[in-house]
Order: sequence, then C-alpha cells, then structure tokens
Amino acid sequence: MKTVIAASLLTALSFSAFAERQSSEPIQVIEPVVGLDQSKVDLGKTLWFEPRLSASNTISCNSCHNLAKGGVDNLPSSIGHKWAIGPINSPTVLNSDLNFVQFWNGRAKDLREQAAGPIENPLEMAFSHDLAVDTLQSIPQYQAWFKAAYGVDTITITEVTDAIATFEQTLRTPNSPFDQWLKGDDNALTTAQIEGYQLFKEKGCTACHSGPLAGGQMYQKMGLVKPFATDNPDIGRKAITGNEFDKFVFKVPTLRNVELTYPYFHDGSVWQLEEAVSMMADLQLGKKLTKDESGKITEFLKSLTGEQPSITLPHLPPSADETARPNI
Amino acid sequence: MKTVIAASLLTALSFSAFAERQSSEPIQVIEPVVGLDQSKVDLGKTLWFEPRLSASNTISCNSCHNLAKGGVDNLPSSIGHKWAIGPINSPTVLNSDLNFVQFWNGRAKDLREQAAGPIENPLEMAFSHDLAVDTLQSIPQYQAWFKAAYGVDTITITEVTDAIATFEQTLRTPNSPFDQWLKGDDNALTTAQIEGYQLFKEKGCTACHSGPLAGGQMYQKMGLVKPFATDNPDIGRKAITGNEFDKFVFKVPTLRNVELTYPYFHDGSVWQLEEAVSMMADLQLGKKLTKDESGKITEFLKSLTGEQPSITLPHLPPSADETARPNI
Repeated sequence: MKTVIAASLLTALSFSAFAERQSSEPIQVIEPVVGLDQSKVDLGKTLWFEPRLSASNTISCNSCHNLAKGGVDNLPSSIGHKWAIGPINSPTVLNSDLNFVQFWNGRAKDLREQAAGPIENPLEMAFSHDLAVDTLQSIPQYQAWFKAAYGVDTITITEVTDAIATFEQTLRTPNSPFDQWLKGDDNALTTAQIEGYQLFKEKGCTACHSGPLAGGQMYQKMGLVKPFATDNPDIGRKAITGNEFDKFVFKVPTLRNVELTYPYFHDGSVWQLEEAVSMMADLQLGKKLTKDESGKITEFLKSLTGEQPSITLPHLPPSADETARPNI
Repeated sequence: MKTVIAASLLTALSFSAFAERQSSEPIQVIEPVVGLDQSKVDLGKTLWFEPRLSASNTISCNSCHNLAKGGVDNLPSSIGHKWAIGPINSPTVLNSDLNFVQFWNGRAKDLREQAAGPIENPLEMAFSHDLAVDTLQSIPQYQAWFKAAYGVDTITITEVTDAIATFEQTLRTPNSPFDQWLKGDDNALTTAQIEGYQLFKEKGCTACHSGPLAGGQMYQKMGLVKPFATDNPDIGRKAITGNEFDKFVFKVPTLRNVELTYPYFHDGSVWQLEEAVSMMADLQLGKKLTKDESGKITEFLKSLTGEQPSITLPHLPPSADETARPNI
C-alpha cells in the first residue's frame, strides 16, 4: 500500500515537474512520430540504403548520413562521386524533420525537397532523377513495392523522395537524459549537467538553440559579434536571397546528439565539442567562458544524446537485365 | 488423429528423402553456425561497419561486402581509397567461412587472415594495422568491449580480425529452396529448377561446384578447355606459388546466392547469370548449352538464394580527442 502511494506520489510529482518544465524550458522534449504509413517507411528505408540511386552504384543516403554514426559521416565535408569533396559539412538526419527548413542555407522547405538534392548533385551521388527512377523502375521488386505503397505503376521522383522523407521521420532520438529530466526525473542529469544547462540559458545560447531540436528553428549569422575565420567559401543565405545582409547567415544547427556529430560548424573545422562551445560564446555572444563554464555546458550538451534508431539493414532486390550498370 | 498420422508419415518420408539426398547429392545443406561467443560476434559486427578502420574514415568492410546486397558491391571490382579501382571482383562474404581458403588466389588460409588484408591494402582501406588499432584503442567504449570479449587491455590486430571473422561466421544463408528440397520438401523447387539441377550434374558442373557452398572447395584453371578472354591482368595462383601451371588458376567461387552476386568471374565482366552459365559450360567443360539448358540451369542456381542475414546496424561509439582524424 505504501509502495502504491509512494509510486502515485512520485508519478504526480513527476507529472507536475514535467508540466512545469515543459511550459517554462526553452528546449522541449522530442517524441517518436506515430501514425506513419508502414509500407512507405519500409520502402523509404530500402531507398535510404540504395546505392543504385547514385551514378557509381556505391553511394547511398547512408554514406553521408550514417545511421551507425549519429546520422553523419564525421568528416569536415562529405566525399562524393569520384572522391569529390563536398562544399559543406553534412548535417545529421536524426530528428531532421523538426528543422524549419532543410540544408544549411534553407534552400529546401522540407525533407521531400531535400531528398531530391544529393541524387543529382555532381559532387554527391552524381546521378539524375530520370536515371535514378529508371533504375528503380527496371527492378520488378521495386515496381511491386511502389505499387503497394503509392498505388502507382510508373515510379516518379515524387514517390522516391516521399518514401525517403517518410522513413526519415522515424529517425527521432527520444529519451535522452535531458528529455527524461524534462519529463520530471531529477536524477537523469548530473550536477554538472544541470549547472551546464543553467549556464547555457544564462549565457544566452538558447536565443538560437531552443525548441525540441535545440536549434533548427531560425537562421543566424555565423560570426554575429566577431567574424568567424574559415577557409570555406560558402556565403550562406546570400546565395539564395542575393541580399548582402544574408552573407554568412545559416540555419542554426540542432544540438541534439551533438556529442556524435563532430566535426562542428558548417565548415567542419572544429573537432572538440568544448572548443566549439567556447567559440560560439565568443563569436556569437561576445562572452569569454571559463574552462569550468565551457566544461559544464559541454557536459549538458552530452545529455542531449538520445536513443539512436534501431535499424535493420534492408535486403536490396537484385538488378534486372535492363537495369543500367554503374558508371565508375 | 488422421492429421497426426499424416504428419508423422510426411515427416518420416521427409527424413528419408533427406537422408537419401544428403548422402547422394554433390551439393550439401548449409546450416547456421551455433555456439559462437556473442560478445565477439557483437564486437565483430560493430567492427564490420566501422569506417575508422580506413584511412579516410569512410570505408568499412561493408562498403565492398554489402550485407544489403548479397555480401558484395555488385561492381566489376571495388572502389577504394581516393576512388582507387581494385584489381579483382569482390567475393561475397556470405557463407565465406566454408571456403577452403580465402581470396580468389587463396593467399589467406582463413577469415582471420583475410580480414587483415583490406585494412592495409592501399587500394582498399589504405590504413595500417597499427593505425587501425591505435584508433580503436583511443576510444573508451572499444577498450571496454575488447576487454569484455577478449580480456585484453591492449588491443592488437589479432583480436580485431578474430572478432570480424567470428561475426562473419554468422553470415550463413540457410533455408534456400534448394536446401529445403535437399531436406525432403519435393515442392520447394519448380520443375525447371529440378531439371536444371539434373543438367547441372549431367554436364559436369558439380566437378567443381560441389559441397555446401557449391564451390569454394578447390582451385581450378579459369579457361580449362578454352582460354578465358579478359583485360584483367591477374594471373591467379601463379602469383603465390610461382608455378607456371598455376597461371589463371583461382579458387572456384561459391554459387550460393549467385543471383545476387553479379557481375561474375574474377574480372566481373559478365552481368547476366545465364550468360555466365553458358560461358562456363563452353570454357570449362567444352560443352555448348542450348538456350533451354542454360535457362533451366540458371533457374536452378536461383534456388541457391538463401535467407539473408538479419543485421541490426550497430551504433558506433564517438571518437575521443586523442583519436586520429581522417586522412582524406
């Protein structure tokens, strides 16, 4: 009886803490997406690992957004067709459906639009939408899967990117220690992490890194207070809008799973998380952190590592005689 | 009661057919390996997908022996470091523990010896054993996993290759239609497949393609009766033994899952299975197959596609500050 009361009390307290924290904290809980069409999810997962969407038949979505590695490749920028070096750091696919726009410069409004990009990018998969679709259409098993998921006999890039985007919606990372704390478990965070979170708020980091992603909700200039020194020629949003004041303006990246998604910044120039924290405080907020402060904020950021998606590798159907052969 | 008797009768008949077929047929059933050390299997699976065993941190075992693709990359020869094109077609890892030796020219006696090769091959992962081991040793989670699996504080290449080889032993593909037929299920094969199997034996294919792998038990000259025309400069076993009679002598490849492991032959020059069948009959046995014969043998070969391994992608532990950075 005592146990029941204690448990009920704990639950009530937890709910109360949850309600309070949820309403007052700048970072919100991430939950799994429910209600997705499983046939589209399964097809999208298969396409995610499908290197025949690339000219060489060796590069898949997972090559640069590796689900074994926090949804990234841990390179400054990705390696594509014929060892081309990409122009910008590969953002994580984890929780990416929660970004307000896609790509560093926001040139895609959602994951469907985003998924179309790398297939035809000559530095990435170096294929074309037509060739990718022709490849899928030539394989009887893909014909059957697209028919079952979308009711179509003729596959188009629309179904391809919709399936990939639907799969990507499953790539949430719930139940991080921070989320457990948000939900009322006071023991989910260490003292250093709680102090780090307080510092994170006090120093002003949450001005940009807020919402369920701790980021991904707005654009911001890289080098707001002091210029960011980089060899990377990317000019950010200016390339899209043409406006001078959009120079070096990028989407604020998520800090979810940031412990796994090194190296940091759009140029992938910084490998240590604590160094990235200190630099951001300095360049974006004009504040010099002590070693103790940057260390505690780093500890807090590690509490944003959630449960990584459990992915069973698909079995890709074999090519048919008509399927185009790789261009190496 | 009738059902029970009927079922018992069926079982008895099945066992009897199994016993007869098992003792008389040149190709034998494949079964899963049991009794492996799970901590080594799990560690080996993680290492299988670990691109930090390569200089660029982008190439893993799975890059060329893709478990989503029948354990191969479906390329004439693999793409390695800085887009190097390898000298020979990538053999499937599926059931590879049953090969009597490893590599096309048999230069490794077992999977442990084989696994050490690609890591330091400049055309493949282009790393060194020392650098690969240093990388693993620098990551606390790997230290803990190697300690748990092997009881060692200091990782060496021996544990690395042992873990990978132990995982590879799990990559059997049991329960192919042909194996079900071998076990006594007369309905597991189509009429064309049974006729194709009879032809496969009558034409003499089983002289080389026998045993549980339907291959992998001996060396044989490629172009035994008529020369094999190829641009590939590989001289086969001669490179190992120095003997002129070993020129163009290679390990006979397995035909298990051959439907998935195109393109065919050590040079990866033939993409259609039926064409490969006709060529083999001509070059190795001096026999011209009719279209009907090559078609039926091809149908039989497709009955050798077994259950593909169900692989849950590992979550690779993040690098530490001391971990060497990728060499791109």
